[in-house]
Amino acid sequence: MSLFDAGHERPASAPAPAPARLKLTVAYDGTGFHGFAAQRDVRTVEAVLGDALAKVLRSSVATLRLTCAGRTDAGVHAWGQVVGITAPADTDPHELRRSVTRMLGPEVVVRRAEVAPLDFNARRSAKWRRYRYMIVNRPEPDPFLARYSWWVPEPLDLSLLRLAADPFVGEHDFAAFCRRGPAGSTTVRRVLDSRWLPCPDDGVLRYEIRAAAFCWQMVRSIVGTIVDAGGGRRRPGEILGTLRRGDRSAAGQLAPAQGLVLHDVGY
Amino acid sequence: MSLFDAGHERPASAPAPAPARLKLTVAYDGTGFHGFAAQRDVRTVEAVLGDALAKVLRSSVATLRLTCAGRTDAGVHAWGQVVGITAPADTDPHELRRSVTRMLGPEVVVRRAEVAPLDFNARRSAKWRRYRYMIVNRPEPDPFLARYSWWVPEPLDLSLLRLAADPFVGEHDFAAFCRRGPAGSTTVRRVLDSRWLPCPDDGVLRYEIRAAAFCWQMVRSIVGTIVDAGGGRRRPGEILGTLRRGDRSAAGQLAPAQGLVLHDVGY
Repeated sequence: MSLFDAGHERPASAPAPAPARLKLTVAYDGTGFHGFAAQRDVRTVEAVLGDALAKVLRSSVATLRLTCAGRTDAGVHAWGQVVGITAPADTDPHELRRSVTRMLGPEVVVRRAEVAPLDFNARRSAKWRRYRYMIVNRPEPDPFLARYSWWVPEPLDLSLLRLAADPFVGEHDFAAFCRRGPAGSTTVRRVLDSRWLPCPDDGVLRYEIRAAAFCWQMVRSIVGTIVDAGGGRRRPGEILGTLRRGDRSAAGQLAPAQGLVLHDVGY
Repeated sequence: MSLFDAGHERPASAPAPAPARLKLTVAYDGTGFHGFAAQRDVRTVEAVLGDALAKVLRSSVATLRLTCAGRTDAGVHAWGQVVGITAPADTDPHELRRSVTRMLGPEVVVRRAEVAPLDFNARRSAKWRRYRYMIVNRPEPDPFLARYSWWVPEPLDLSLLRLAADPFVGEHDFAAFCRRGPAGSTTVRRVLDSRWLPCPDDGVLRYEIRAAAFCWQMVRSIVGTIVDAGGGRRRPGEILGTLRRGDRSAAGQLAPAQGLVLHDVGY
């Protein structure tokens, strides 16, 4: 603790107020971060957000007991990441929201802050996560969407994209569409929705996928495979077979991180 | 000229091909530039684009005789900036477009390239310029729109914004809404359109203004004044009087550069 911070600490003689659990809905531009989860020596959302919260609450990062709904990878964005923290019971959630956003916005913005049950855990309490992926399908890139999309210059066929999105719905072993996690961990997941949103005629395509949980790099692997089908390099009818065989080498390219957004989380 | 570039020059003995004039439609993210016009010691769109064009055409920047429709200020973006250049008559406009975009995209993108009359001058041939300005009117900033918009947290009244946009249409002396240009230069301009686009219900507001030509910082001064009215700090009915008196101190705040885009140019 620095000398500067010391002045903000509660005096040791004051009784510690009872803790409350808060649920924060957080948006961030992932471009400048090595993902959400704290790691040594690199800039992460968890570290930056944790430091700001600790400063505003005049506590330490450890006492926050910070949990998150989705550990987004390097370069992945969030519109509705959910973070759970422990704070003194007298914390005003709206004042906390405004203070953190003043410190970190517009790169990291606390969109909502609300009191949650004391056992609220952003990861374990979540029923589903929804991700969106944006593609710019035009002959030339777009300077204003480039940070948040994948530029695909070859023409994609929307009906093939829709056909290729369907087989992922349901419970499958996604071994072919994940990077391996810890040995022995399951890659079986249940996908609730997999669809392309209605597209305006400007070449901006938006894909949406919702599941209770995802494996590592699963959405980017699925999007890359669907785009292969949309570009005519793979038949949509072959995708179910690739899923069933669990053959990682048969899956498509990995779609780049910057097109992916953790859109919202259901509880 | 570097040793590396020397190999690309046409041999001195070859006859110079007849020149052609090309019209380029250029989009750029202005965040990293000190405006369009070349200036000593700072990074500008004109310098970066001119260098890339000269490299692709194996010519010098001076022989391009580059003209542009709007000399956008530092931090201002463009979707449809128009640039005129002189190139060898055998230049394939589409190959030129692709080569420059490969070098500079996605920050600077040549969206179209076409052959123009030999006397085409992007500035003098233009009949009108259209600018757009984006405002995010929500309690919290938006990480994904922040580079391209002005975040205004106080609630704005759309009907007041519309009322305040009307008085600018027509021929006026915009002395109150410009930074002074060279002594003796006129500040009389004819505004053809000044309106708010239909707004979806997500707090993103888009203003559009079209005129034969604009004075320096005129759009940002107009937008700042309209936003003052939309927030209740100024009556829309007073704006015409401010215009007529030409009193710079009576105009509103200057809207920040990053919300402004040179949208398109008419010929």
